[in-house]
Amino acid sequence: MTQSSVSAPRPLEGLRVIDLTRALAGPYATLLLAGLGAEIIKIEDPKGGDLARENSPYVGRDGVTVMRAHPDDLSVSHLTRARGKKGVSLNLKAPEAREVFADLVRSADVVIENFTSGTADRLGVGYAAAQAANPGIIYCALSGFGAGGSDGSKAMDVLIQALSGAMYTSGEEGTPPVRIGIPMADMLAPVFGVIGILAALQHREKTGLGQFVDVSMLGALTSFVAIENWRAMEMAGMSGRTGLTVHRLSPFGVFRCADGYVAIVAVHEGLARSLFRIMGEPGFADDPRYNSRDGRVANAVGLEAQIEAWTSSLPTAEVVRLLEAEGVPVAPVRHPSEGMLDPRVVARGETMAVKHPRYDTDESLRTVGIPIQFSGCRTGFDDVLPVEIGQHNASVYGETLGYSAERLEQLRAAGTI
Amino acid sequence: MTQSSVSAPRPLEGLRVIDLTRALAGPYATLLLAGLGAEIIKIEDPKGGDLARENSPYVGRDGVTVMRAHPDDLSVSHLTRARGKKGVSLNLKAPEAREVFADLVRSADVVIENFTSGTADRLGVGYAAAQAANPGIIYCALSGFGAGGSDGSKAMDVLIQALSGAMYTSGEEGTPPVRIGIPMADMLAPVFGVIGILAALQHREKTGLGQFVDVSMLGALTSFVAIENWRAMEMAGMSGRTGLTVHRLSPFGVFRCADGYVAIVAVHEGLARSLFRIMGEPGFADDPRYNSRDGRVANAVGLEAQIEAWTSSLPTAEVVRLLEAEGVPVAPVRHPSEGMLDPRVVARGETMAVKHPRYDTDESLRTVGIPIQFSGCRTGFDDVLPVEIGQHNASVYGETLGYSAERLEQLRAAGTI
Repeated sequence: MTQSSVSAPRPLEGLRVIDLTRALAGPYATLLLAGLGAEIIKIEDPKGGDLARENSPYVGRDGVTVMRAHPDDLSVSHLTRARGKKGVSLNLKAPEAREVFADLVRSADVVIENFTSGTADRLGVGYAAAQAANPGIIYCALSGFGAGGSDGSKAMDVLIQALSGAMYTSGEEGTPPVRIGIPMADMLAPVFGVIGILAALQHREKTGLGQFVDVSMLGALTSFVAIENWRAMEMAGMSGRTGLTVHRLSPFGVFRCADGYVAIVAVHEGLARSLFRIMGEPGFADDPRYNSRDGRVANAVGLEAQIEAWTSSLPTAEVVRLLEAEGVPVAPVRHPSEGMLDPRVVARGETMAVKHPRYDTDESLRTVGIPIQFSGCRTGFDDVLPVEIGQHNASVYGETLGYSAERLEQLRAAGTI
Repeated sequence: MTQSSVSAPRPLEGLRVIDLTRALAGPYATLLLAGLGAEIIKIEDPKGGDLARENSPYVGRDGVTVMRAHPDDLSVSHLTRARGKKGVSLNLKAPEAREVFADLVRSADVVIENFTSGTADRLGVGYAAAQAANPGIIYCALSGFGAGGSDGSKAMDVLIQALSGAMYTSGEEGTPPVRIGIPMADMLAPVFGVIGILAALQHREKTGLGQFVDVSMLGALTSFVAIENWRAMEMAGMSGRTGLTVHRLSPFGVFRCADGYVAIVAVHEGLARSLFRIMGEPGFADDPRYNSRDGRVANAVGLEAQIEAWTSSLPTAEVVRLLEAEGVPVAPVRHPSEGMLDPRVVARGETMAVKHPRYDTDESLRTVGIPIQFSGCRTGFDDVLPVEIGQHNASVYGETLGYSAERLEQLRAAGTI
């Protein structure tokens, strides 16, 4: 199933979201909603805007650069996270900002923010203010430890990975913990935020009632950690470190090749026999050490050494080719750049090329897409992007809210927008 | 914000889901929907049921055991993944199964399956069959590489981690790749499946139309990988391996203590100075190697060695206490069992105790909850669980579908249910 045609509707069309988010967690939530068709109105401070605008690297007329060289060079972070969003400027500390915010909320279905816990209330843009303006509003707050929690300022992905136990689960026993190279906490909180918002919309359809939706980075990541039976494993004397291979499923795991690494899963009898044959050891199928699941598990260390002696003598591609030909589950360990260019994920829009509004970019420079295909709808970001801070002020404040030209000019003069 | 009271509604109440899933990815999707209040009707083969019923470890009258010792010992996998679901038996290969399936689909809003791509159609329970029975149905398929893809049978989490690039992102340059200890591909596909289902429900509210929602494990995980600028980093000569510390943000990362590890983030000037003072090196604040961001980045290796010389002389708890007192972001690297017992995640139901229907279990034995708080709704699994295969046949087939006692008896006698 490939993407629906470009004329198909997107599933969340008609939904309007006021986006107070910055950095990564919040903007990823509104990116998902944008790709699904919601109208996102991203609020930025008139002076400076989202800090992600200043993240290196940049892309522009010189291609990808570590430093900004030209005024129209744009941060890859901004180019990729602001897709599909309209941008308005609003200085939340200005006297008239609360009134403008209330007007935005009255026109909208959803508000979302990822300030440090307590900040939105202090700025007058918290749930109480939004609810006063629009009782049906669904207000989603993403924070480190939950709304009302204290340590909000310390909610960085690396700290949440450490606290959740996620860092401890990878790597070999006796080695240091492993910082996961994907910002899992930053990414999971928004994903659950989107689920919460859409579930709250279902509730509103039935009841007319809005509500406050509260997701924490620590909770989102720890809930993922909790899918595995760590405590039961610990009680059974098993390590919390999962390592590259799993002895109780041997042969299962990652093995070194001459030029890289390969993942192999040959847990069942027939697969193990195929592997033995391909690696030139058909006799293992009758060897009492390896001819049963129990034997392979008991002799996993020796068996893995034998497998790696074979894999390390060959290029990764050759190991993959030989095992695939016999139906043994196998995959090369790829660099992220190669994974992101997999024709399957490219065709499905699960990764997308980074586009600069003025300059061509390398197709290999890719970013996150929407990993969901709909038979009757499409997804996508429709090429709206706030290149300048406040780029869509006229469209949103003027057309959507109906502010007059005089009012807009007065807000601009006062530094409110 | 804590959970709403037990009398509050759950947001997806009234939604009925026919659940054809097995193993982990699919059942986690319906677990999320169950916790949000949907009615889940889990279909299992009358002989054997979901394979997760046979996963070690078990819990029962002897507590946690690796082998099943008593007939009422239950697999922790089943006890944790089947919560909140009604269970019916249905042999999909029986002649009358298609008619029963069609009756179920007519009564429902959503169908979800995670068979190998193509299997559901072959069994007569694919989207075409479901749509024929109920044109408004939303049908979600989770697979390794997408609906219509070929290599479905090879879609194991470890292979998807390898292909996506996720395995390569963690760990230090020059060391082997890292298998992430959380089954990220198995967990992310269902999360995006739930978003797809809820988005399709929004579309159905507006149009009356159902549709097919297709999510792949490879796409879900690769889209997460794609949030980082791997290609741009590669072009700039930077490694795709992220390691334990980040030199360009130094001091940032994970450091060894006398009895464990600690994550520290002191990227800003004031935080770095606080860290220097606490570690007994206030002179670093004036040392040209360390007194500016650029200096710290250029001399990151030496600075990290100095920091680790200090952290490794103290217990983790003491390093945390000293840095927290001065507001320097810090967190201990915890074992998953400890992370899952964090009072914050326990209070918010982000992890939950494993409950056996007959025996008390250790509160420290915890599993995944719903990491979303709603001000006007609650989440939870309401204690329904199919202990026996077909436990809710009478309730679902009899009451929901209105089958007579004779019809039920006939289906039972024929081996259909």
